[in-house]
Formats: sequence, structure tokens, C-alpha cells
Amino acid sequence: MRVNGKQYKALWTARGKNALFVIDQTKLPYSFEIIELSSYSEVVAAIKDMRIRGAPLIGIAGAYSVWLASAEAIRQEYPDLFLHNAYSQIVTARPTAINLKYAATKIYQSLLEVTNTGQWPETALQLAGDFYKDEIKNFLKIGSYGLGIIKKIALKKKNKTVNILTHCNAGWLACGDFGTATAPIYKANSSGINIHVWVDETRPRYQGAKLTAWELHHENVPFTVITDNAGGYLMQQGKVDLVIVGADRIASNGDTANKIGTYIKALAASANNIPFYVAAPSSTFDFHLNSGIKFIPIEVRDNAELNKVSGLLNNKIINNVEIFPGNYPVSNYSFDITPFNLISGFITEKGIIDANENRLRKILQNGKK
Amino acid sequence: MRVNGKQYKALWTARGKNALFVIDQTKLPYSFEIIELSSYSEVVAAIKDMRIRGAPLIGIAGAYSVWLASAEAIRQEYPDLFLHNAYSQIVTARPTAINLKYAATKIYQSLLEVTNTGQWPETALQLAGDFYKDEIKNFLKIGSYGLGIIKKIALKKKNKTVNILTHCNAGWLACGDFGTATAPIYKANSSGINIHVWVDETRPRYQGAKLTAWELHHENVPFTVITDNAGGYLMQQGKVDLVIVGADRIASNGDTANKIGTYIKALAASANNIPFYVAAPSSTFDFHLNSGIKFIPIEVRDNAELNKVSGLLNNKIINNVEIFPGNYPVSNYSFDITPFNLISGFITEKGIIDANENRLRKILQNGKK
Repeated sequence: MRVNGKQYKALWTARGKNALFVIDQTKLPYSFEIIELSSYSEVVAAIKDMRIRGAPLIGIAGAYSVWLASAEAIRQEYPDLFLHNAYSQIVTARPTAINLKYAATKIYQSLLEVTNTGQWPETALQLAGDFYKDEIKNFLKIGSYGLGIIKKIALKKKNKTVNILTHCNAGWLACGDFGTATAPIYKANSSGINIHVWVDETRPRYQGAKLTAWELHHENVPFTVITDNAGGYLMQQGKVDLVIVGADRIASNGDTANKIGTYIKALAASANNIPFYVAAPSSTFDFHLNSGIKFIPIEVRDNAELNKVSGLLNNKIINNVEIFPGNYPVSNYSFDITPFNLISGFITEKGIIDANENRLRKILQNGKK
Repeated sequence: MRVNGKQYKALWTARGKNALFVIDQTKLPYSFEIIELSSYSEVVAAIKDMRIRGAPLIGIAGAYSVWLASAEAIRQEYPDLFLHNAYSQIVTARPTAINLKYAATKIYQSLLEVTNTGQWPETALQLAGDFYKDEIKNFLKIGSYGLGIIKKIALKKKNKTVNILTHCNAGWLACGDFGTATAPIYKANSSGINIHVWVDETRPRYQGAKLTAWELHHENVPFTVITDNAGGYLMQQGKVDLVIVGADRIASNGDTANKIGTYIKALAASANNIPFYVAAPSSTFDFHLNSGIKFIPIEVRDNAELNKVSGLLNNKIINNVEIFPGNYPVSNYSFDITPFNLISGFITEKGIIDANENRLRKILQNGKK
């Protein structure tokens, strides 16, 4: 997608280089910096400190980190042991998003079948690249299916502006390209449908205000940044036509883990009869868990995310300010669970699916409708 | 209430001085500063820029500002005209809280009946002082009635900790003393009931994190600061027993205007069968409006409240940082409306009243049950 008119992906490799290149998401919107990660442990560190973030992107980075680990492994005395240890660290870098485990496991298990360890790096690079390409195709399909939903609303509103609310960043930065929640938005915008996006700022880390707004700004999509508190009022006043969010993990019953605050937006959408869709590829579904509320692990992050805020000073230098004293007790759950009954449907690469376990299993597990 | 062990009110006068003394609420929690306001226009300015804030407190400040205006008026050629003009500016300083209009009108109309303008200042000071004293008595009664609710929950939980969630600051800073939402909390804490308060940080101005947390810290009430996004998850996980919030205006049908974000907390409380109470004195009720959703005016404040955040730098100097670019479009509705059907009851100085128009009118308008 575009950054100052130039095309980028959120993550890429370069021919002949044992490294992953990523946009440092902690520096946006003020500084556009690309970092080069040359070992799996550097990738794990970047995932942990959220320079790489977004469930689909950490899945993709997880796949590539197995590649980097395999290149390191074959220089060790016991490559299998090294790779297994690296794999364990990769899949536990963050607990809530399932994509990380899904993608890293896919590559890792394929390598276990390659007995000539010398071929590991080449195999892993090929597989990770294929996975990345497939995910991007999936985001494009999500965009097309989601476009259908927006088109219907536009028709109903006689081409008046369709107001879409989104929470956190489920954009191209979070996915590599196009995004999940944003794919239908970008598609609608380039199709000439009048849309406007309400961007939840998304405390504590402001991924909406700092990342989604930045994306939409560079793609010339009309948007307005709001506090996380404002969405309910806007819905009550008829100023929201549709909510689309991403997901970090979806249980087989449709319960959806996503950025903290998603659940109360779903409640508000339901109370005001506004469709609430979750956009996610198959890699976000975890059919091992039959209840999200009961079983999806919720990450608790550093307390300092609440009382320290990063921003630009008058002198144009980025700095942290402390907005309340560090000795005040704080709690920082990073995700919440939206129960399936509040979800109008899932926008997946295989079509729009009701929040119904049988339908989800039929379409996503068997691959056919 | 206590600040470093010393007793304070949020606002006071000094014998023989034509001035109002207030704690500057924009400087907390890092700097405890008292400002002296010597004219009604200084009070209006302090209300507008939120050095004085909280619906009950701006009511009280409004009352005293009529006193200051009357002292200025009697030195003018046309005292009536001056006072009327001042009164108009006072009641329109902020649009949503009704207390301001209620209290200022109370004093202003009494002065109109005093034909000897020379007696205006003395009369106004007496009336404003009486109003302030009565409001404080009301907050104490709200505390007692609210304590009853907390006691019942404590009994049901066999004295395990009662977890109370509150939004914004409806504490003693917002009221002069004791608070509305906090009065039951302070009373429960001093009664030895085990309580813990979840403090919504309350974007965009962080009145929860900066003011409520500061109050609770100085009163030794156990609390935890959370993002506005977190409350729904905590309720879903059974970690909230009770929600108590304040109000800026309550329509006769029970629809309640309060800080933006209150409505989605009420939705979450309702979805999880958690009692949701609004604590407010009679002066917050507006029986002229029979629907809050339709008729309560919602203030839209400066966009910069969203993208500029005030905090402490490493060098311990307070500064603003810009968290996202100032050219991103922003919308800043400051209040929302919680519909009456989501409210378990109103904790008033005349008892706990259901969100029912007939009951509200009977008890609050006639003054008797």
C-alpha cells in the first residue's frame, strides 16, 4: 500500500539476504523506519515489543522466523534441538493471536520431514513465502466479500456516505498488505463508493490513531479519529452504518478475541441494530477451542503502557510523558472476547460466514461450502 | 477531603475577600495549585478551560460567580444590565451540565427581588454559601444511601472485596466535598467494608486517571486504573460487582448525560447483570426535558484534547506531547446519553429512586415520597 505515494508491504525479504525487513510500527506516524532482523531471536524480540504487530503479520513473521532459525540451526551441533528450542520461543512470543502458532507450526512441521537439514533454509524460505502470498490473496478475497456488504448499505442509503467504525489496527500494517478490516474499506474507496471511517484511537497504545489513521491518510480514505469512549454515542445518534474489526483468535463457536474494547463496541452495535463484522483469514480460527470466553488466553501487558505516552514534543523530538504517577496501581488486559451472538458474521477468504459453529467448521475446516 | 493528610474542599471563599479560591484541576496529579478568581469573568474562563469542572462544582462556582458579578454590578451605571449580561455569560459557560444554570439562576432570581442593589453582594454571598452547604449535605446523604447498596453486596459476597467501577471523576474535586459517585465509596471505606475501585482513565482528558485516582490515593481507598476499553472485559469475567457514575444532566424520563463513554459501560453492565447506579443531587435533574436522548445538548470540545496529551517529562517538567498529527480529522463529543432502561437507579439526597418518570417527579419535584 502507499506511503507518500510509494508502494510498500509491512514486511519483506531480499534475495540473497538472510534477513527480514519490517516497518517499525512503534515509530509511526512520526517516523517511517525500516528495521532489518537477521535472527529468529531478533524477530521474537520485535514481536514482543510490538515493532511487529497485528495477528496476521505476526503469523507471517513467525513463519519467516522459523526460516531464520533453520539457517542458524544447521550451523549447530544439534540442528533439531536448536530448531525445536527456537520454535518454542517463537510460538510463545505472544499468547493471544493464534496466527503465530498456526504459521510457525506449519513451517516447523514441514522441516521435520526434510531429513537433509542442509535443505532447511531453502525449504523454509519457500514455504514462508508461499504462506505470505496466500495470506495476501486471502486479504484480497476478504476485501471483495466485505465490499459486497458495503455496497448493499450504500445502495440502501442512496449513495450517501457509508460510515464505518473500526477499532485498533487491522490494516495493511497488521497484515503485510491490504489488511483484514481495512481490505473492504480500501476496495470500497477505490470503487468510488462514498465512505468515511470512524477510527477508535485504541488505548493504551493508540494503534487506531497512530496506525489506522496513518494508513487511511496515505490512502486518501476520509476518516475521523475518535476516543474509544465515543463510538456508543455515535451509534446511538445514527452516525455509524457498519462496524468492521479484525481478530486475534476466533474459537469454533465464533467467540472472538480482539483488541481490548472490541466487546463493548459490539454491545453498542447490537443495541443500536448496526451490523458488526469480524474480518479474518482462516489462520485466525482455532477449532481446538469450543469457547472463546472460557479458553482463549488473554495477554496482560506491561503496566507502563497505560501511564507512559509517546508523542512529539514542541521541539519535534519524540519523547515519553507520564500522564499519571507510576505508583498508581494499573491493570492492562490487552484483549477481550466478543461473544458470537453479538457478531453479524465473519468476512473470510471463503466468504461471509454466520457466527455458527457448524457453518464455520463446514466452510473453513473442510474448505468447501 | 484529604490532600497529604490535610483537609480541603475543591472551592472556598475567605472572609472579607471578594474572591473564589479553587484547586486548579488541570494541574493535578502532579501539581497542587490553588487559584484565586476575583471576577465573574475569571470564573467563567476557569469553567470553560476546566480548571473548575464537575457538574455539581460548576453549579456551586456558578452560584458564587453571580455573587462576584453582583459586586462588580453595583459599581456600574446600570447594575441590572451588567448583572443580566454576566448571568447570561455564566449560564452558557458550558452547555451540558444543568447544575450551572440551576444554581446561577437560583441566586440571580433572588437578587432581582432585592431592590436595594447595595445589598446584592451580601445577599448573593449568603445564598451561594447556603447552596454550597446544602449541596455538601446532599453529597453526604448520597453517601449514606449508596452505602446501603454496597453493604448489601458485601453481605452477599460474605465480606469479600466489593469491586466498584467508576467513569470520569464524580469525586470530591467535582463536587466541593465527598463527591457523588465517590461519596458511597468513601463512606464504605471508612466503615471498614472491603472495597476496590476500577478507575476508568476517561479519555480524552483522563479525569479518572488524573483526578479520581489522585483522590482515592490520598484517601487510602484501594483502586486500579484501567483504560476505558477494559471495563467490558472485567464485567464479563465477574470482576465488577457494581458501577456508580455521576451525571451532568438527567431528563425527567431518567435518560442521563454523563462523560462520553458512560453509555457503553451501562450497556456492558446490563449485558452482565451488574447493577448500574447514577449518583446525583436534585440539582442535576432537568424536569423541563422529557427525553435525554432527544433534548440534552452535548458539548463538542476542542479537537486538540484528543491529539495533545499533558504529562511529566523525564526532567519532571509538565509538557504536552502530540500523539498523532494535528491535521488528522478529529471529533470530540464530551458527553453521551445513557437511556433510562439501562439504569438500576438514581442515588439522590432523597433516597434511591428507580429510573421512572413518575417516581422521579414525585420524589424530587414534590420533595416527598
